[in-house]
Amino acid sequence: MAVILQSLPQEAALTKIEYEGPKIALYSRNPAYLMQNSQVVSNMVNTIKKRIVVRTDESIRKPQAQSAEIISKSIPAEVGVAGTFFDPVLGEAVVFAKKPWMLAQTGEDFDNIDLAEKTGWRVRIRKAPRSMAAIENMYRLMGETVAERTRFYREVGDKIFRDKLIGEAEASLMTLGGFAEVGRSCMLLATQESKILLDCGINESARDSLSALPRFDIAGIGMDEIDAVVLSHAHMDHAGFVPALFKYGYDGPVYCTEPTMLLMEILQQDYVKRSKNPLYLERDIERALVHTIPLTHGIVTDISPDVKLVLSNSGHMLGSVSAHLHIGNGDHNLVYTGDMKFGKTLALDNAYWNFPRVETMIIESTYGGKEDILCPREEAEANLARMITSAAHAGGRVLIPVPAAGIAQELLLTLDLLSKASKITNVPVLVEKIISDATAIYEAYPEFLSRDLRPRISESEESPFGSQFSTVESFETKQGEPAVILAPSSMLTGGPAAGYLKQIASDPTSKVIMVSYQAPDTPGRLLLDGSRQITVEGEALSVRCQIDRIDGFASHSDYNQLMAYVSRLRPKLRRVLVNHGERPKAQNLASQINKIFKIQTQHPLVQEAIKLL
Amino acid sequence: MAVILQSLPQEAALTKIEYEGPKIALYSRNPAYLMQNSQVVSNMVNTIKKRIVVRTDESIRKPQAQSAEIISKSIPAEVGVAGTFFDPVLGEAVVFAKKPWMLAQTGEDFDNIDLAEKTGWRVRIRKAPRSMAAIENMYRLMGETVAERTRFYREVGDKIFRDKLIGEAEASLMTLGGFAEVGRSCMLLATQESKILLDCGINESARDSLSALPRFDIAGIGMDEIDAVVLSHAHMDHAGFVPALFKYGYDGPVYCTEPTMLLMEILQQDYVKRSKNPLYLERDIERALVHTIPLTHGIVTDISPDVKLVLSNSGHMLGSVSAHLHIGNGDHNLVYTGDMKFGKTLALDNAYWNFPRVETMIIESTYGGKEDILCPREEAEANLARMITSAAHAGGRVLIPVPAAGIAQELLLTLDLLSKASKITNVPVLVEKIISDATAIYEAYPEFLSRDLRPRISESEESPFGSQFSTVESFETKQGEPAVILAPSSMLTGGPAAGYLKQIASDPTSKVIMVSYQAPDTPGRLLLDGSRQITVEGEALSVRCQIDRIDGFASHSDYNQLMAYVSRLRPKLRRVLVNHGERPKAQNLASQINKIFKIQTQHPLVQEAIKLL
Repeated sequence: MAVILQSLPQEAALTKIEYEGPKIALYSRNPAYLMQNSQVVSNMVNTIKKRIVVRTDESIRKPQAQSAEIISKSIPAEVGVAGTFFDPVLGEAVVFAKKPWMLAQTGEDFDNIDLAEKTGWRVRIRKAPRSMAAIENMYRLMGETVAERTRFYREVGDKIFRDKLIGEAEASLMTLGGFAEVGRSCMLLATQESKILLDCGINESARDSLSALPRFDIAGIGMDEIDAVVLSHAHMDHAGFVPALFKYGYDGPVYCTEPTMLLMEILQQDYVKRSKNPLYLERDIERALVHTIPLTHGIVTDISPDVKLVLSNSGHMLGSVSAHLHIGNGDHNLVYTGDMKFGKTLALDNAYWNFPRVETMIIESTYGGKEDILCPREEAEANLARMITSAAHAGGRVLIPVPAAGIAQELLLTLDLLSKASKITNVPVLVEKIISDATAIYEAYPEFLSRDLRPRISESEESPFGSQFSTVESFETKQGEPAVILAPSSMLTGGPAAGYLKQIASDPTSKVIMVSYQAPDTPGRLLLDGSRQITVEGEALSVRCQIDRIDGFASHSDYNQLMAYVSRLRPKLRRVLVNHGERPKAQNLASQINKIFKIQTQHPLVQEAIKLL
Repeated sequence: MAVILQSLPQEAALTKIEYEGPKIALYSRNPAYLMQNSQVVSNMVNTIKKRIVVRTDESIRKPQAQSAEIISKSIPAEVGVAGTFFDPVLGEAVVFAKKPWMLAQTGEDFDNIDLAEKTGWRVRIRKAPRSMAAIENMYRLMGETVAERTRFYREVGDKIFRDKLIGEAEASLMTLGGFAEVGRSCMLLATQESKILLDCGINESARDSLSALPRFDIAGIGMDEIDAVVLSHAHMDHAGFVPALFKYGYDGPVYCTEPTMLLMEILQQDYVKRSKNPLYLERDIERALVHTIPLTHGIVTDISPDVKLVLSNSGHMLGSVSAHLHIGNGDHNLVYTGDMKFGKTLALDNAYWNFPRVETMIIESTYGGKEDILCPREEAEANLARMITSAAHAGGRVLIPVPAAGIAQELLLTLDLLSKASKITNVPVLVEKIISDATAIYEAYPEFLSRDLRPRISESEESPFGSQFSTVESFETKQGEPAVILAPSSMLTGGPAAGYLKQIASDPTSKVIMVSYQAPDTPGRLLLDGSRQITVEGEALSVRCQIDRIDGFASHSDYNQLMAYVSRLRPKLRRVLVNHGERPKAQNLASQINKIFKIQTQHPLVQEAIKLL
C-alpha cells in the first residue's frame, strides 16, 4: 500500500485502496488521470506483482439514470443500444449495442475517458446478443447484492493477501470425481496454505448419488475449509455441484471466465427445472453467481497466499479453459487441461499449449483409447449433409441430441454454412430454446470465439449461428414433415431430446444422429451399441427409427490430438495424471504417453491422493 | 438381543444386555450358570457373529474389601499375593501373585466359578511383575473413571453396532506419516462407514513439527471424525501422538493389546518428562488410557459397522501386533504388518503369517535395502560378549543405547544368559530405570512372550531379564570402573543415554555399541557414519571413545526375512504397499517384491491416498 501511495502523484486524487477479490482497486476522484497515464499503473503492477484496477470513487459517480442519459447522448442512434447496465461494486457501466462496429465509424463523441469524467463510471461497449435475458438477470442480481459483494470482495482479498503461515511449499491432489470415469469432475488441490477445488461437477447419468457426486464425504473436507473454486467450463459434469457447495456452507470465490459464469447459470437453472429432486434451488445458483469472480485469459492472478492462476483457452466450448496453477514461489506448476480440443473447430481456436513451465499435467482422456480416431471435419460435414438430405427426402425427421452449449453451437454454425451453401435445402432446423439461450451467450462474447468467427459477430448484424433457424420448446413434430431437431440432453437421459426421441422412435424414415460422447448405460450409448429396446425417462421404448453416428464434431481431442498436444508442450513434464475418461481410455493414454514421451504417468481412481510437491 | 434372550434359560438369571465397546455383555445374577455352560455362549456367538462376555450383575457384587478377603482365603499363602485389583466396569478382580504356579499345586480351594458365586466378581490370577507401579496406576485410574468408562463402552458399542448407512463397500487409505521415512507412523483407513487410524506416532528426531507429526492438517481430518484408533505397538513412533488426539477432541476407542496399553503409557510419560514443550500433558495420557480397549490375539472384533479387526503377534516387542482388517462383508482384507520380526528372538516368537485372506498388505521396510542383511544371532551374541570383555579388561565402560522397551529386554535376556554362562564376568550391568519399568510389563504378560520364555516367567520366581542387574537412574559412572550400561534414547538424541555418552566420550577405553535402527541426522547415525564431532542435546561433543555396531539383535526383519515373510504368505496378494523405511529402502523392497512375486507394489509418500476398494 505504501508503495502505491508513494508512487502516485497528487493528480491521481486517490481516495482509498481496497482489495477487490484477487485485485487491488485504486479509487480515484480523477480516474481520467490514471486512464491517460496507464504506464503509471503498469509500473506499479511490475513492482508489487499484483493485479491493480482503477475504480472511480463513489463520490464522483452520477446517479445511474442521469449517467445512462449522458452515455446515450455520446452514442449515435445507428449503434442501436439494447441496454445499459451499471455495476456499483466495480463502478462500471456496460452498454450492449446491436451494431458496435458503427461506433468506430460514426461515434466521434464517444470517449471513454471523457465519459468517466462526466459520469463517474467507467464505460464499456459490448455486442448485444440475440437475447438479453441472461445478461439482464445477471445485472439485476449484481444490483441486488451490492453490499454483500462489496464485503465479499474485501474478504476474499484479505484471505489471498494475508501473510503465508509456513515457509516450505507442499501440495497434494485429491481425486474427488472424474477419474477413470467421465462425469462429476472434481479435484482438491491442498497446499500448505490453501485448499482449492478444480471443477466441481455432477454425473447426471449415474445410478446412485455415491457415483453421481464428488466424494467430499470420504475425503472429510468441510465446505468451509475450501478457499477457492476454479472452473474449467460450464458443463454440468464440471460445474453442476457448485450451487450445492454454497447450499452446504461454502462462502468463497469461484473463478472462471465470464461466459462460463453465464452459461453455467443457464445449465444449472435448466437442471433444477428438469429434476424431480434437484440437489439445490435457484437461490443457491444465484449465490454461486454472486460469488463468481470472472477472469480473462493469460492474466496471472493470486487466488491464495501460495497459488497463482492463469486461464487459457481449451477449445472445448465457449469460455472453456485450461488452468495453470503456480504453487508456492515457483516450486511447482500444475496444468489442468480441462475438457480440451487440440484441433480447430468453427466456433473455437485450438487449445492453448504454450505454457512456460509445467511439472504436473492433468490431461483429459474422453477419447484416449487407441481406437478413438475421429473422422476428419470435412467428412463429418459431408456425412451430416448426406444424412439430413436422405432423411428429408424420405419425409423423415432428424434428431441430433446435443448438450445445450458446446457441440450445439458448433452444429448451428455448420448447419448455417450447409444451408447457405444449399447443401441442405427445404428442411426446417428446429433449435430447442435452451440451446438458443446458450447461443446468446456465444454472441455476447465474441472475444472468446475463434479468430475467424470473431469479426463475423462483432462486425455483423446477422448471426453466424443460424438466425434463420426456429427456436422451439418441446415442439410437436409430425410424421412425414421433415425437420432437423437440435435438443439436449446429449445422451437421451432426459430433457427435450428424450421427448423428441419418443416422437420419432416408431418412424423408420426418421433418424437419430449421435455426435457427442455417450456415457455407459445411457440410452444414447445403448442405442449406439445396438439395443433397440431401451428405457427413456423410466418408459420402455421400442426404437425403429435409424440410429447414426458422426464423431467428427467432437469437442474433445481424439487420441491423435491428445498425443499431439503432449508432444507440442515445450517444458519437460515430470508427471502426467490422466483423468476424465473411462478406465480403459485413461489407462491407454497413460501408458502411451509413458511409452512414447518417457514421462511418469498415472491414471488414478476417485478417492486417491497424489503428492505433487 | 431377541436372539440372545430367547436362547437363554431362566437359570441364566439375565438382568440386562449392554454393549461393552465391541462386545455384548450379558449381566447375570447367576454367572456360574453361564460359566459352567460355556457352550451356550459359544453357540450364541456363532449365531450372531458378535463377541459376547458374561458379566456379574452389580446387585450380586460384594464390596471390594469383603470380596478381597474371600478371594484371599481361597489362595494359599505360598502363592504370594502382591495385590488384588477390582474393575467395577467389567466386574473383574485380578489377583497378582508372585508364584502363580503354586496355585496349581496347592490351591485346592481356588475355584473360579465358586468365587464368582461367593463374591459376585470374576476372578483372574496373573503373575506379579517385579514392580507393580504401572499396574497399580492403571487400576487406580480405572477406579476413578467408572462412570465415564461405563458410558464410553455403551457409546462405542452403539456406534459399532448401528445399522450400515450405505450398501456398497469402499475403502481408501490416506498416508499421514511413516511412508518413505521411519517415524510418525500413521494412516487413515476411510471406508463407507468409518474412519480408522492405524497407528499414530511422532518422529522425535525430526527437525520441525511438519515432519515430526502425522499430517492431519493437509488431509483435513477433524479429530471428532475419527471412529477408532488401532495401534500396532507402544513405541513413540507408532503411539506417541495418541494423547494429542484426545487433547484435540478425539473421544473414541483405542484398540491394542494390554501390554501395548501399559508400555505406551510408560513411554509417553517419559516423553512428557523429558520434553521442554511436550505435545500433551499427563492428563491427556490418562484420557488415552481410559479410552483404550485391550484386545487379545486371534479374536475377530467388530470395530465399526463395516470393519472387523484381528490382531496377531508381529514379533517386534512385547504386545506388538500385525493388524488384519476385514472391510465390508468380506469385500477386502487389509493386513498391516506393523514393525515386524520374521525371525525368532529370545523374547518373542516369529511374526504371525498365516492370514486366511489378504488383498492388500502394508509392510514395513526399516531394513528393506538389498544391503540390509543382518548378522546371525549367534554371531551377534559372541560379538557382544567379546566387545564387553575386551572393554572391561581395558577398564572401559560400554554404553548400549536402546529404546526403553524392545531391544532393551532382548539384550537383558542375552546378557543374563552370557553372564550365567560366564561369558561376561565381573562386569556390572547397569539398567536405566525406565527400562526396568518396561521390563516389569514384560514380566506381567508372559502369554505375549515366546513359547520358550513363557514358562521361565510363569513358573519361576527368578526373572530371566537379569534380576541380578542393577537398576540405576542417570548414574555417575567413573573412568576406570568397567560397566555395561543400557539406557535410552536409542539414537542418542537425548534421555539418559545422551548423559552417559557425555560421561564416556573422552575415554578411549570406553565404547558405544549401537544395536538398533538409527534415523538420519541423529547423533547415533552420525557416529556410525564416522563423525566424531557431534552435537548432543545442543552441546558440542568430541567423541574419542570407540564406536561399534552389532545389528544381529534388531527387532525388525532384515531384507531376507521380509522377503521370506512375503513368500510364506498363503493368500494371493493383490497389492503390497511398503512403508516405514527410508525412501531407498522402501523403493528397493517394493521393486523386489514386484519382481520376484509378481505382485503390484507401491511405496507411497506421506500425504497420498490409495483406493483399496
